[in-house]
Amino acid sequence: MPPQNALYAQSGGVTATINATACGLIEAARRQRTHIGRVYAARNGILGALSEDLVDTTAESASAIRALMHTPGGIFGSCRYDLSPLPQGRAQYERLIEVFRAHNIGYFFYNGGNGSAETAHLIAKILPRLGWPVTAIAVPKTIDNDIVRSDSSPGFGSVAKFVATSMREAMADLASMSHSSTKVFVMEVMGRYTGWIAAACGLALPASEDGPLLLLVPEVHFDRRRFLAAVRLRIARHGWCAVAVAEGLKLRDGRHLTQTGGDGIPGHEQLGGVAPLIAHMVREALQVKVHWSVLDYVQRAARHLASQTDVDQAYAVGRAAVAYAVQGKTDVMPVIQRSSNHPYRWRVTPGALASIMNREKRLPRSYLTADGWRLTARARAYFTPLICGEAWPPFADGLPQHAQLKMRPVPRQLKSVFQIEP
Amino acid sequence: MPPQNALYAQSGGVTATINATACGLIEAARRQRTHIGRVYAARNGILGALSEDLVDTTAESASAIRALMHTPGGIFGSCRYDLSPLPQGRAQYERLIEVFRAHNIGYFFYNGGNGSAETAHLIAKILPRLGWPVTAIAVPKTIDNDIVRSDSSPGFGSVAKFVATSMREAMADLASMSHSSTKVFVMEVMGRYTGWIAAACGLALPASEDGPLLLLVPEVHFDRRRFLAAVRLRIARHGWCAVAVAEGLKLRDGRHLTQTGGDGIPGHEQLGGVAPLIAHMVREALQVKVHWSVLDYVQRAARHLASQTDVDQAYAVGRAAVAYAVQGKTDVMPVIQRSSNHPYRWRVTPGALASIMNREKRLPRSYLTADGWRLTARARAYFTPLICGEAWPPFADGLPQHAQLKMRPVPRQLKSVFQIEP
Repeated sequence: MPPQNALYAQSGGVTATINATACGLIEAARRQRTHIGRVYAARNGILGALSEDLVDTTAESASAIRALMHTPGGIFGSCRYDLSPLPQGRAQYERLIEVFRAHNIGYFFYNGGNGSAETAHLIAKILPRLGWPVTAIAVPKTIDNDIVRSDSSPGFGSVAKFVATSMREAMADLASMSHSSTKVFVMEVMGRYTGWIAAACGLALPASEDGPLLLLVPEVHFDRRRFLAAVRLRIARHGWCAVAVAEGLKLRDGRHLTQTGGDGIPGHEQLGGVAPLIAHMVREALQVKVHWSVLDYVQRAARHLASQTDVDQAYAVGRAAVAYAVQGKTDVMPVIQRSSNHPYRWRVTPGALASIMNREKRLPRSYLTADGWRLTARARAYFTPLICGEAWPPFADGLPQHAQLKMRPVPRQLKSVFQIEP
Repeated sequence: MPPQNALYAQSGGVTATINATACGLIEAARRQRTHIGRVYAARNGILGALSEDLVDTTAESASAIRALMHTPGGIFGSCRYDLSPLPQGRAQYERLIEVFRAHNIGYFFYNGGNGSAETAHLIAKILPRLGWPVTAIAVPKTIDNDIVRSDSSPGFGSVAKFVATSMREAMADLASMSHSSTKVFVMEVMGRYTGWIAAACGLALPASEDGPLLLLVPEVHFDRRRFLAAVRLRIARHGWCAVAVAEGLKLRDGRHLTQTGGDGIPGHEQLGGVAPLIAHMVREALQVKVHWSVLDYVQRAARHLASQTDVDQAYAVGRAAVAYAVQGKTDVMPVIQRSSNHPYRWRVTPGALASIMNREKRLPRSYLTADGWRLTARARAYFTPLICGEAWPPFADGLPQHAQLKMRPVPRQLKSVFQIEP
């Protein structure tokens, strides 16, 4: 009997290194011909599985798959869509069985964050119960670094390296301009619920310095008066002040700053992010020139400055997922365990999805100083290995080169069209 | 008689490579001991010259000066301040003579853009007339690429490389998300009066493609209806659309979009830049999810992704300035002349300041297609060599390393304090 095929899919917000995981997974599966037949990829995450929109990765050359190591974004397309548990979701699971049976899919790999872990868990539990035994494995990926039980999340190290580098560089710029022009620079980074990325900006300053850089994270409630006093003090001391702010910065009452227009008055919403609000606040209160930046997709797509540690880990979890699958493990996620900081040592181990999904690892309060403005030594010991090493992509004509896949469609076997509910 | 000393100063918005010019200039001057004594640097541009706030660069080791090659920002501090012509500015010129005489300064190098070229010109003309012969040379630097008579401006190639790379990467991200989430991404880049930087984003797409990327530059008036139709068409064709917009985007009546809140109604100003306005407009009109980014200082400080061409040219104009000075040239700027695209060949020649200062090189209309949305082959031939080569800085602990100078102050000789008028 020929081995069953595998289906790989990408889910949620993408990262600079999610395709390195795809590379690790496809390369490992290609070496398991006795256990795994073809590796298919679903287009646009679980939506492609439901709509039988599949790509046959066997059509891709080894070098094309290798090029995924340096290609940002999710090459097969991602989605923002979660399966519902039973009984509401029954039609979805029956449809998945129909598709899996039509294409003889025995392994399902879902590359995503906390929400995607639940989708993989539901598939692992429900499909066998409804008559289609399947090995389902969640493969971690999120710039948010909020996956519990994993010391770090693939995707985070690279965004951390990019924002810390950008902050260090922008601070050099600000310092030059501050004498007769701009005195404050505000940089907004991602992080709707957690401050991992904003905290990583703290690496821009050397360890010992209580310097002109303030960190604003969702885990520490924003207090306008205290913040303005801190900015004023740093301008007086250093001539300037830089601010790293997470998009999800919150007030004491739990509302996001962006819901209030910054002045605490509901209805004063702005079109933009939190950086222009903070910039406006500082300008009005301190009467100084302020510059601000919102990095958005640029930060999480910045594969040109990926961390080698992150690329290695993204690749390793893809390989581990295949190893677990052929060992018969299901309903698990390969997670990263750290055993030492100096030298940095880590390994990949399986974590049960039920203990991971729909939970959220927040930035520990011990990672910030008592005043909340900067990193502790403990935080630096945690962050530093994650951003180490430069995994430069190849360049041509001055620009980074990305993988070009053939994306050969798998011929459809099913006549029925599945209506996906929004 | 010992040779006279030189004074170097940095002016205007800084770049990722202005310090490479400082490096070229200081290294060249150190090899001209018969002509040039010490190289002093003024802190914060011409303001440091007026206030006798000088640094002695002879205190810096050769390796510290070399590290300027990979250090963004203006290491000696910049300023936003211009000298006035005579007769209003007379007190300033008399003060400069006082300072130059006290420190035996015979050479003045001003590293800046169009405005700084005028300051250098005024010093070259007026100081000798008032009794202090001085060689004054403007050294080019501006991310805006708007210096006339210079084929490109040091600083521009690196920002162009960074924004084109970031756009290419963000487009990979957007393409992955577009199926069930974000359909449009808007990235705002610098360019208050010219669209050079926004146009460089067009390199993110391969040459032949009429793809899902629109360029919005100040040289082409913004027409809301035409723009929205273009976005709609690209979403229909490709599933998504990316937009690069210059901060100085203008309406037909000459007002900046940011002055009108995007809807053309005065008084609807927003706190932020033009990207959130464009994003809001698209979201409202097309009912799609939109992401946006404002790069601000991050783009012009991104030394981690500098163009080797740009670093080479920045260094070369610093060296050329010293060569001109010892040849007795004054009132000039070393400018870049291109003699060939394939292979790319360029050299540095002297340009008279009177023919350069206070003029502005705008993006030629022939660089954009008739519809204004994308680059022509001519534009690509111009831009491509400027972004070629990767001049990676050294990294330690995952982050780029910057020069640390001693900044030894030159002992003040003057008792009087000069009152600088704002």
